[in-house]
Order: sequence, then structure tokens, then C-alpha cells
Amino acid sequence: MSAHENHLPPHVVIVGGGFAGLWATRALARDDVRITLIDRRNHHLFQPLLYQVATAGLSAPDIAAPLRHILRRQRNVEVRLGEVTGIDTGAHRVSLAGGGDLDYDYLLLASGATHAYFGNDNWAAHAPGLKTLDDALGIRRRLLLAFEHAEATDDPAERAAWLNFAVVGGGPTGVELAGTLAEIARHTLKNEFRHIDPAEAKVRLVEAGPRVLASFPESLSEKARRQLESLGVEVMTGRAVEDIDADGYTLGRSGPGSDSNRDRERVAARTVLWAAGVAASPLGALLDAPRDRAGRVQVEADLSVPGHPDVFVAGDLASVQQNGKPVPGVAPAAKQMGACVAKAIRARIAGQKAPAFRYRDMGNLATIGRMAAVVDLHGVKLSGLVAWWFWLWVHVLFLIGFRNRLVVLINWAWAYWSYQRHARIIFGRPDSVDASPPD
Amino acid sequence: MSAHENHLPPHVVIVGGGFAGLWATRALARDDVRITLIDRRNHHLFQPLLYQVATAGLSAPDIAAPLRHILRRQRNVEVRLGEVTGIDTGAHRVSLAGGGDLDYDYLLLASGATHAYFGNDNWAAHAPGLKTLDDALGIRRRLLLAFEHAEATDDPAERAAWLNFAVVGGGPTGVELAGTLAEIARHTLKNEFRHIDPAEAKVRLVEAGPRVLASFPESLSEKARRQLESLGVEVMTGRAVEDIDADGYTLGRSGPGSDSNRDRERVAARTVLWAAGVAASPLGALLDAPRDRAGRVQVEADLSVPGHPDVFVAGDLASVQQNGKPVPGVAPAAKQMGACVAKAIRARIAGQKAPAFRYRDMGNLATIGRMAAVVDLHGVKLSGLVAWWFWLWVHVLFLIGFRNRLVVLINWAWAYWSYQRHARIIFGRPDSVDASPPD
Repeated sequence: MSAHENHLPPHVVIVGGGFAGLWATRALARDDVRITLIDRRNHHLFQPLLYQVATAGLSAPDIAAPLRHILRRQRNVEVRLGEVTGIDTGAHRVSLAGGGDLDYDYLLLASGATHAYFGNDNWAAHAPGLKTLDDALGIRRRLLLAFEHAEATDDPAERAAWLNFAVVGGGPTGVELAGTLAEIARHTLKNEFRHIDPAEAKVRLVEAGPRVLASFPESLSEKARRQLESLGVEVMTGRAVEDIDADGYTLGRSGPGSDSNRDRERVAARTVLWAAGVAASPLGALLDAPRDRAGRVQVEADLSVPGHPDVFVAGDLASVQQNGKPVPGVAPAAKQMGACVAKAIRARIAGQKAPAFRYRDMGNLATIGRMAAVVDLHGVKLSGLVAWWFWLWVHVLFLIGFRNRLVVLINWAWAYWSYQRHARIIFGRPDSVDASPPD
Repeated sequence: MSAHENHLPPHVVIVGGGFAGLWATRALARDDVRITLIDRRNHHLFQPLLYQVATAGLSAPDIAAPLRHILRRQRNVEVRLGEVTGIDTGAHRVSLAGGGDLDYDYLLLASGATHAYFGNDNWAAHAPGLKTLDDALGIRRRLLLAFEHAEATDDPAERAAWLNFAVVGGGPTGVELAGTLAEIARHTLKNEFRHIDPAEAKVRLVEAGPRVLASFPESLSEKARRQLESLGVEVMTGRAVEDIDADGYTLGRSGPGSDSNRDRERVAARTVLWAAGVAASPLGALLDAPRDRAGRVQVEADLSVPGHPDVFVAGDLASVQQNGKPVPGVAPAAKQMGACVAKAIRARIAGQKAPAFRYRDMGNLATIGRMAAVVDLHGVKLSGLVAWWFWLWVHVLFLIGFRNRLVVLINWAWAYWSYQRHARIIFGRPDSVDASPPD
């Protein structure tokens, strides 16, 4: 039974409280609709700073805010903690794990993306990716325990393997992780160990393509490479990872004309982080809609699903082309899509034509490490310290909630002056400290 | 082979990086000794504020600091992440999990206490206690999920069970948890739910003895009870918990002359927290020494183990009497014992007589909730807002590390003005949101 028949306001079901879902929800605050926002987690996550939690610079609560709290004053929203398991576009119904269905008049699917191992799912156990707070805390635990293991062992080969770090993937996340990891080894942990010198840790960034930060102009990729190298990161481009297991990884050469047998290299490394592949949320497959190779749903100009004008997809789950180029999977694009879907729903309710989505490119930023970043603002290119300051202010300004902003700024100021990272806590009992790799 | 024969400085092994172990380590900073500090965790924990992490007011890293970082400049210390599994006082040797022995010249066992269920270990799964950061994060998860479950269910009985909270034990930890929980229900979560009113949550504090905060003067116990009640806590004294399971708990009447069958009460409650029993760390049993009922090691006047002048016990693991009364298991007592053991080791090395331990009672503080506390300073009794301010400053001043102090103060100032608690993050996937109780 649809809500229209009940003379209730239309029911908008929004799946996912990330940038796309949350911005759509807020944009509908003054509309006569009933919104149900469903998320598997109770918090909105400021994903651009997730690498800071993974590298112990920020606490998890610094970059997350409870969805209920953000939306407490928006009385047309009900927040529901739950997991969507089925979508019936014919019956206009969403099913939830543990039972319970929701009938919708309009549906927005904004469940984002996860990391992908290109068919090598067995790598997941040895090379964790970074998408959620739980991922970040798991990576933090691994990084910190690696230095503990290196300190505890007397075997030089094992010690070297614990001090060998690799980050796979030279996009923004890989560059951030590698740069920060080098800073931790060289500065943060200085003087803290008695049997190892953490500065001897090797941090390697492996990228299969010809350059890091491929979405930036070539000159900034080159600047980023030099900034990474000056932080102590070994940048390897044109090399593909062929295997990852508990003891290390195997590198081949990528690209045409390479003789992968001759160029194959086996590296003993106990800590490999995965920043290479992104796949759309599996919820996209629940829709009867065309999808691209990464599983993103190919939407109409107004972000609705072909043949289903009452179903929309936004954020990282949506595949949108503009001027022959894909709209990137970044926070500003997700927010703009969320706001556009709100307009489209408003137009549908009024019986009007929904506007087409236009991505306004606000520029491209990536941070590299201590006082190093690159910024591309429509052809204005910045790098180094100036870019880093720009990056910091943009990120702090966009953090949701005043308290978080202030605490994050203090943490950063402190980290800047002291090189210290305050969240270096290993949760759980490190039972495996002497022998086996951490969980 | 003892270190003395090698003409190396004597080797002091300290087990536990809590207040006792850390203060002993620091007190030996200028002595010609080699110290190995062993802890299962990589951080020193400011335990007096642990309840704030459990109730989402502070982040875990706010009240913890890496032991390596605290001690990085003290060059006569090696910090070792590991777990002690055996002590051979004859061979002067400590064994570690995963292999590896340490020979000592002097040993300090300061591994603290854990919570105890008085032989009802099956209660542990249903009524978690609060001793570590992992405990605190588990309790935080339970508290937050309880409100989510209550919001999600349509069954009035189930909803009531999810909104029924009980804290067992009316000591300082129980009082803090109950008071803060009432504040969360009445203020923090206000307006955030659509199907429940969190203020309808029932928070009950159950104490078997005749009054809460039994270590305080009776007048302050009475003040504490009234402050708890004005925060919305139901205080039940003279009632013992007879059983706890996944669905609730059974209350009996404690004390002589009670007819437990007649007074028995079964309460449906999905969230029970345990703050009733403390047992000494099991490492105490590895020593061949007399122990009290709670497993604490009964030490000599200089805190050494009878018959083993080179082995010391300090902190919550030590059973010390002074003027016929036990020295309480509080942070100031542990710090004083740690410092006293350092003096005793210095005296032993110099061939002198070690001083006897004297506990200097600095007074007794307990916080109750928003702007409510009780303070007993050698007969000067404070309660209410004045006591709360005193309590806050003392705790912030004693927090290790400037950065933590500043961030904690900001968090508190923010919580004070806004009633908000910033760390309301549920880690992990709340798979159990619709049916079973959270793990």
C-alpha cells in the first residue's frame, strides 16, 4: 500500500548516510515528505580524514558524528540502523536484514563503495583496505604492532620483514598512507625503541600505472613523487602486485612489452596496505539496471535509474559521465548528487521535470604528509607547504560539527609541533606479539 | 646468570605499566639500573576516567598514552609488549608468552586487578565489567545499541527490556556509570529518536550493602544517593543480585533475617553492567606467597614478598594494612607504592634497610554525574557542584601529557554546555540490531 493512498506525505527511503545520502536528506528538510534514512552504522563518517585514524593522528570519534544527532532537529526524518538485503522496484519495497520491510514512494540508493581486490579476495586478509572506521582501527593496530614485532625479534630477516611496509595503489589514499607512514617511522617513533631504529623502516608505494595521483596534471604527479621521496617513501610506478600472502608480496612489471618472469621480485614484508581498487556497493546489483565494470549503476541525466523514475542512485555507487569523462568519486561530487536528487524528488512530487545533474568541479586536492600536498584549482597548481595549508583548512572547514573541528585543529597543531600522534593505542590483547602476524 | 656477575647494572623487571609500575619506573630514572617494563598493552591507562570512555564522553586515546612514548627519554628503560606466564623466584626468572625468559635481580609485580563475579563466571557475558579500554568500548557499544534496539522493536515488553538498565555495585565506578547513564538518557539523546523517548529509560543502581560509596562518611553516602535520585537513578541498597542472564536479572534481599524467596524479584533488562567485584590479577598466584580472599599478595612492610626480599608487589595486587585498615585500591595509593618500591630497590642495591611503606591518604573523591560529586578531605566534606569542580580539576591535572589534558578539558566544556557526548560511535556492524542482544 503506497503512502499516497493514505493521504500521508510521500515516503522517501534513503539508503546510506554518507555525503550523498546525508546531503539529500538535509536538502529535503522543508519538504512535505517522510524520510527514512537507513545505514548499517550509526554515524556519518568524514571519509577524507579516515587515513588519519588509520595512522593514529586522530581518534575515531573526531571524524564521525552520530546520524541521529546530526538530524535530531529535522522532524521529517527517521534514522534507522539496519542493513538493506533486497529491493523490489515493482512493489516499491525495501527489505531489511532480520525482517522488516519498508514501502517507499521514492528511493535513493547511496550506499557508496568498498575496496576490491580484482578477483584476488584471498589478498584481503593480508592487505587490508581503508573504507570504514573499523578498517582504520585494524590498520592502526597492524602498523603499531609491526614495530613491536620488529623490536621483539632477534632474527634479522624477520625484523626486516616487520620493518618493510608497502602501500599498493598510488591514488590519494595510497599517497596519504605512504607519506604518513614514513613520517611515523622517521619522526613519531624516534627514541622510543631500544633494539630497532624505526627510521630504518622501508615504506614503498607501488602503483601499476605510470604515475601517482593520475587524476592530477602530470606536473603535480611529479611534484607529489618528489615530496614522497623527500619524506622517505620509495615510489615504484609501472609495477603491478602479482601476489600477496602473510609473508610478503610479489611484484611484476606492468604494461606492454614487459617480461614478467624476468622482472618478478619477491619482497618479504609483513605489512601491506591496499589502496588500489574500488568496487561499488553490492546493493547496486539489487536493482535491475545497467552497471559499469566497477559495479556502479549507470543512471539517467537526473540520476534516476533507467525505467524507474522513482529510484535514484547517487555518490560513489552512481556512474555518471560529464563531457565524456566520469564524475570522480569524491565528497563534493557526492554532496552535489545528493542535493540534485532532492531537487528531482521535489520536481517529481510537483509533477514537473527533474533537472539534469551538472557536476561543478571545485578542484582537486591531495595531501602527502607533513607540510606536503598538491592542489589543482582549474589550472592553478599549488604544491608543498602552501598546498598543505590549503588542504588543511578546506578539510577542517568541511568537518561536520564545531566540536570536532576544534579538537581536530588542536590535534593537528599538536602533531605539527611535536611530531606526535596521540591515538597510538593498540586495542585488544596482542597475543601474537612474539611469533605470528597480527590477526 | 645474574647480571651482577657480568658487571652490568642490576636488572629490574617491572610487570605492569599502570600507576604502580609506571611510578616505580620513573622514580628509578637516575639510578644505575637496567629496567624492563612489561605490559600486555602498549599504553598506560588513566583508569579513573575510564567510565567516561564507556559512556561516550571521551575517546579512548584521550585517557591513554603509549608507554614507549612516556618513557622515551628515560634511557635505562626498555618497554616490552608481552604477557608474563611464569615466575621462578628461585632462578630469578620471568617467562613470557610465546617463549622468551627474562632474568631479574629485582622484580616488581604490579599487574593490578580485574573484575570478579564471585564464582558466577557465566554472568560475565551478560554483565560486562570495566577495567580496560576494550571493556569500555564494549560497554559503549552495548549502551548505544540498547537505545537502537528499543527504537527498532514494536513489542512493548521488548522495548521496556531494552530501556531497563542496571548497574550492579554501588562503589565509585557503579555510581559514575549509573549517574552518567541517566544523564545520557535524559539529556544527550533528547529529540534523537522517533518511536521512543530515551528519558523513559530506567536506570537502577543495585548495592548489596546498606549504602552507596561505603568508603565515604555516611553523610556523603546519603548526599550521593540523593544526587543520584535527582539525576533519575533508582538506588536500591540492601539488595543482592542472585542471577544474571541474557534477558535480565534476579534480585534478592541481602543481609540477615531476609526471606529471599519472598523478596525475590525478576527484572527484564537487556543491559546490566558489573561494578561489584574486584579480584587481584592472576599473576599473584604465580608467587609462593600468602594472599587474601581477593587474591591480593600479603606483603612485608617494605612491600617485598615474605622470604623474597628481591620481589615486590605494588598497586591493586598488593594487600597492605595500615592502622588496622586496608590501604584502598586507588590511583594515589598505587603511585605511592610504586615510588616506595623504587626506594626499597635503591636501598637493597646500597646494602641498606628499605623504608616501610606509609600510605598518605590524600582524601576521597567520587563523581556522580553532571555537576554532582562528593569529596572527603580529612573530614572536610564537599558535595554537589563544588565537589564536582574539585573532582574535575584534580582529574584533569593528573592526566598524563599536556595534549590529553587540553583536549579532555575542551570535551568536557563542550559536554557541559551542550549535554552532548562526542564519542557515540558504534564500531562494527550491528548485525544483531533487530533480534539478539549485542555481543
